[in-house]
Amino acid sequence: MREDMDLERVRELGRQLRVDAVRAADAAGSGHPTSSMSAADLMAVLLARHLHYDFNAPSNPCNDQLIFSKGHASPLLYAMFVAADALSDEELLSFRRLGSKLEGHPTPRLPWVKAATGSLGQGLPYGVGMALASKRLDRVPYRVWVLCGDSEMAEGAMWEAAEHASHERLDNLTAVIDVNRLGQRGPTRHEWDTGAYARRLEAFGWHTVEIDGHDVDAIDAAYREAERTTGRPTAVIARTRKGKGVAAVEDREGHHGKPLPDAEEAVIELGGRSHIRVEPRHPRSERCARPLDHAPVELPRFDVGDEVATRNAFGQALSALGTVRGDVVALDGEVSDSTRSEFFAKEHPERFFECYIAEQQMVAAAVGMQARGWVPFASTFAAFLTRAYDFVRMAAVSRANVNLVGSHAGVAIGPDGPSQMGLEDLAAFRAVHGSTVLYPCDANQTARLVEAMADAEGVRYLRTTRGATPVIYRPDERFPIGGSKVLRSSADDRVTIVAAGVTVHEALAAADRLAADGVPARVIDLYSVKPVDAVTLREAAERTGCLVTVEDHWPEGGLGDAVAEAFADGGPVPRLTRLAVRNMPASATPEEQLRVAGIDADAIAVAARDLAA
Amino acid sequence: MREDMDLERVRELGRQLRVDAVRAADAAGSGHPTSSMSAADLMAVLLARHLHYDFNAPSNPCNDQLIFSKGHASPLLYAMFVAADALSDEELLSFRRLGSKLEGHPTPRLPWVKAATGSLGQGLPYGVGMALASKRLDRVPYRVWVLCGDSEMAEGAMWEAAEHASHERLDNLTAVIDVNRLGQRGPTRHEWDTGAYARRLEAFGWHTVEIDGHDVDAIDAAYREAERTTGRPTAVIARTRKGKGVAAVEDREGHHGKPLPDAEEAVIELGGRSHIRVEPRHPRSERCARPLDHAPVELPRFDVGDEVATRNAFGQALSALGTVRGDVVALDGEVSDSTRSEFFAKEHPERFFECYIAEQQMVAAAVGMQARGWVPFASTFAAFLTRAYDFVRMAAVSRANVNLVGSHAGVAIGPDGPSQMGLEDLAAFRAVHGSTVLYPCDANQTARLVEAMADAEGVRYLRTTRGATPVIYRPDERFPIGGSKVLRSSADDRVTIVAAGVTVHEALAAADRLAADGVPARVIDLYSVKPVDAVTLREAAERTGCLVTVEDHWPEGGLGDAVAEAFADGGPVPRLTRLAVRNMPASATPEEQLRVAGIDADAIAVAARDLAA
Repeated sequence: MREDMDLERVRELGRQLRVDAVRAADAAGSGHPTSSMSAADLMAVLLARHLHYDFNAPSNPCNDQLIFSKGHASPLLYAMFVAADALSDEELLSFRRLGSKLEGHPTPRLPWVKAATGSLGQGLPYGVGMALASKRLDRVPYRVWVLCGDSEMAEGAMWEAAEHASHERLDNLTAVIDVNRLGQRGPTRHEWDTGAYARRLEAFGWHTVEIDGHDVDAIDAAYREAERTTGRPTAVIARTRKGKGVAAVEDREGHHGKPLPDAEEAVIELGGRSHIRVEPRHPRSERCARPLDHAPVELPRFDVGDEVATRNAFGQALSALGTVRGDVVALDGEVSDSTRSEFFAKEHPERFFECYIAEQQMVAAAVGMQARGWVPFASTFAAFLTRAYDFVRMAAVSRANVNLVGSHAGVAIGPDGPSQMGLEDLAAFRAVHGSTVLYPCDANQTARLVEAMADAEGVRYLRTTRGATPVIYRPDERFPIGGSKVLRSSADDRVTIVAAGVTVHEALAAADRLAADGVPARVIDLYSVKPVDAVTLREAAERTGCLVTVEDHWPEGGLGDAVAEAFADGGPVPRLTRLAVRNMPASATPEEQLRVAGIDADAIAVAARDLAA
Repeated sequence: MREDMDLERVRELGRQLRVDAVRAADAAGSGHPTSSMSAADLMAVLLARHLHYDFNAPSNPCNDQLIFSKGHASPLLYAMFVAADALSDEELLSFRRLGSKLEGHPTPRLPWVKAATGSLGQGLPYGVGMALASKRLDRVPYRVWVLCGDSEMAEGAMWEAAEHASHERLDNLTAVIDVNRLGQRGPTRHEWDTGAYARRLEAFGWHTVEIDGHDVDAIDAAYREAERTTGRPTAVIARTRKGKGVAAVEDREGHHGKPLPDAEEAVIELGGRSHIRVEPRHPRSERCARPLDHAPVELPRFDVGDEVATRNAFGQALSALGTVRGDVVALDGEVSDSTRSEFFAKEHPERFFECYIAEQQMVAAAVGMQARGWVPFASTFAAFLTRAYDFVRMAAVSRANVNLVGSHAGVAIGPDGPSQMGLEDLAAFRAVHGSTVLYPCDANQTARLVEAMADAEGVRYLRTTRGATPVIYRPDERFPIGGSKVLRSSADDRVTIVAAGVTVHEALAAADRLAADGVPARVIDLYSVKPVDAVTLREAAERTGCLVTVEDHWPEGGLGDAVAEAFADGGPVPRLTRLAVRNMPASATPEEQLRVAGIDADAIAVAARDLAA
């Protein structure tokens, strides 16, 4: 029978965590020992007496979740893993070296880390996603603990998370705020005024406890209070000292992110090395029902020739996916009637999450949920996903499998104007490591891609269109990720037009005119912008000698660049012309927008004729 | 002598603003009349009795600033311009049409709009920047008024702004929050609980007043209270009814963002058209000293062969620029000791703005300041500028002239790991309309580019490097934006290596090895990633037939794509090979990182040799 470690020994454990954090940073020659030392007592009490975790089974769905929102305190986290016998001392000293899993900031290369941190203000948002999964999806009584820095409370994302957590009454979530007074280059806004944080969080609906973060009795009592509090999340706001325990650095400026000046001396000052080992509390439950197997999806089917907006097809396909797959969940940024995720919300309200106008938190919640094994689709206007770009970037570092859907892409939205037009989304998502970028042109294609993306790896992005476009593919057509469709082709083709989404229809119209004028043109629907179908593009280049790309997007980073990338293998490169949106749009009808931007059928026909001449 | 309009007539003005908003949206066939109607009384009182503004001189530096953070209420804003005799009724009815300056969401195509809005949660952050400029830079007693929606209070950026405003004691800033209870697809989180907003803002250090937003006496009193309040900003939190005054839509769901079902009937219900004209109060002062002319900048000079980090050169150059240019200001996201903007902070503390870890607010404050004629440089790690990408996107819509500087770019930072590495920044900034993207490789080049970017148009981005790199250019060398430098060249070149930043030095080392092996290689330093020097690239292509691009960035959207874009003119295209970071990095030394990523001299030499073979 396991007994909780007594608090005197926990105090010793805190010292050990400091010592090991100092040693790790010293071995690395870099890192953040002082930011680790301030939080060591807070984490010692957590590990020894409150965290329910089986380190031998990190994917046990009943494990508590611990997130270091202040990811730079990684030496402390790794010292905890050593104390839990999950890492060896030798591994600890490999910190920050080539090949080590102990990176400068925690990543899921370590099995006990479920979300990468290191961009401040992200850990609490992820924690909210996990706590929400516990409450509403897993229905397993695991708790989520997030160690936050005081500096990162300046990030707006923390307050999106605070609002989301209290609105959802996440009493299984505890934020531990390490108020060590000093940021990277000097004092924080509120220094040791823990009341400043408490007032703000209370106003946002949280329960708060202010304590001395080096008093293990107070810490223990605060965690017990958090565990007892119902109906709202708790913040333990702890006054601490950066570099605690070593006079040369304690509460002094100028020691952020550096090994201690004399680590050997510091270890002695801290009381020397020790080898306390901790067995955390067992997970609170062994049972966790997660739907896994499922029947084949019955996707919506659309008739060729009908006019259907791809955003509608997305909503219908997502809803159909949700009907057979219990692991699919949807999140939206208060625009579900525009993105059409409302179709899913209506059918599967228990798996729909309204995130209001807080795109960072929406993406973070999705990342938190996928870390728990769920398959999230998060949607808003393509333009507004830029709000969460840092979270998307970090999702890739987290090796997260997450589906993001941006509607209302491009000038084709018409009169709403440039603030609402996603015109940089393809560039932004292409430049995310390991991402998939899809841009369908019709409803059946959209439905198939929604099904396919659910099982792809990494960050997957689907771009949908506001207005209706003609259905050109039959419902049973297949659209593998990384593929493309050749829509017009003959042995005599003199030019290839590469398009995606709305410009596919313009390209087809242009090809008809060109054919009538005796300039046969190949048309490729490049629905998979990344990965790109280099084989088909190269074959078209070989046959036709020249390519026109046309996209409802800025000229940089989108379809044109994706096509160019297919020819960056040292082989022969065709002549290329790029049509894209080159001037800042204003309000106009969708048709006018395409014309003014020079990406309509007329412009394509002119460009193709010139190039083929 | 101007007298304030009496409140009975102001009430009439509110009705007129509603009528005109309804008419504008009806003429357009789209737009947000109901969101305009809720705020009409709030804006009528402001325009008639509190706003100090000369509509004939929109660039009068003493004008108050009015920002519609809820930019979709543009019909109301335009109706105010009509009431102020700044727009004709005919112009009002051109709303959302091709060629009209009355776009779906306000942009600075109208001279009275200083910051584009339409991405929610941005107007208050811009307003904080303008109010800060009033207090600390212009030292002119203009006030800043921001009309906020209740839905957008969910955006974290609003709370970054709230914190920034109270920390800087911006008593010249008033946020008017239009709590109309209904978001786009249904009720907001807090509906009509104005206390929920008041508690949060009070906790954040604001003075608050809760009122009935249709009671002109209460509104007038609240604005007077705001004007009297010292030492902190005021929020007027107004309970309103969406679609106020027209029973068919008032406080009803399903009427967001649509013209009224029967506009003619609605105008009658609202009391019919009227033609009240308002002369707002005069600006509070006529005087505004802004430093304009300046002596030539004495840039720092570095000796060829020395090793200097480009971030250091940036900091020194910015400080030197600040010495002769009183209009240059600097902002930083609590990492000025890393970005080296601390050099500027030390020399010019009165023009340095610590924004703490709130990158959205930092960029927004910069946009707000440039709207007032200042020349801001905002800096943080390149990776963390992704946090503000939506603000950067919107800065382009605002036609803002703003300098953004990202340090610690690429894998070259070494052990800190991928969360700290800017690896998508070139892609993200290239895909901003009208942007300039600069990536210097040495200290003298950096200094020159800092000077040049200050006077460029639009969003300008400078990417700096953490580690020291050799100085290879003399201090007097010139580096025009849009240029490049050919560093190695001979008549026999068989391949061209295109590099920028850290990879320039790797390319030079590779070229030396290749030369020794009998493969003469041209080397181009493409320091201006956008605009790109197509002429030099094409000439190199013509002479050498093939190009290797090498960049410390993901393969998508960066240098490789920029080079490809130079050959998207329908002309002949050279064979291309692209070296870039293709796997997720971890921790390692800078040298190891370049080697593992395959972007060091060895990798370049191999790729160039293969391509030239």
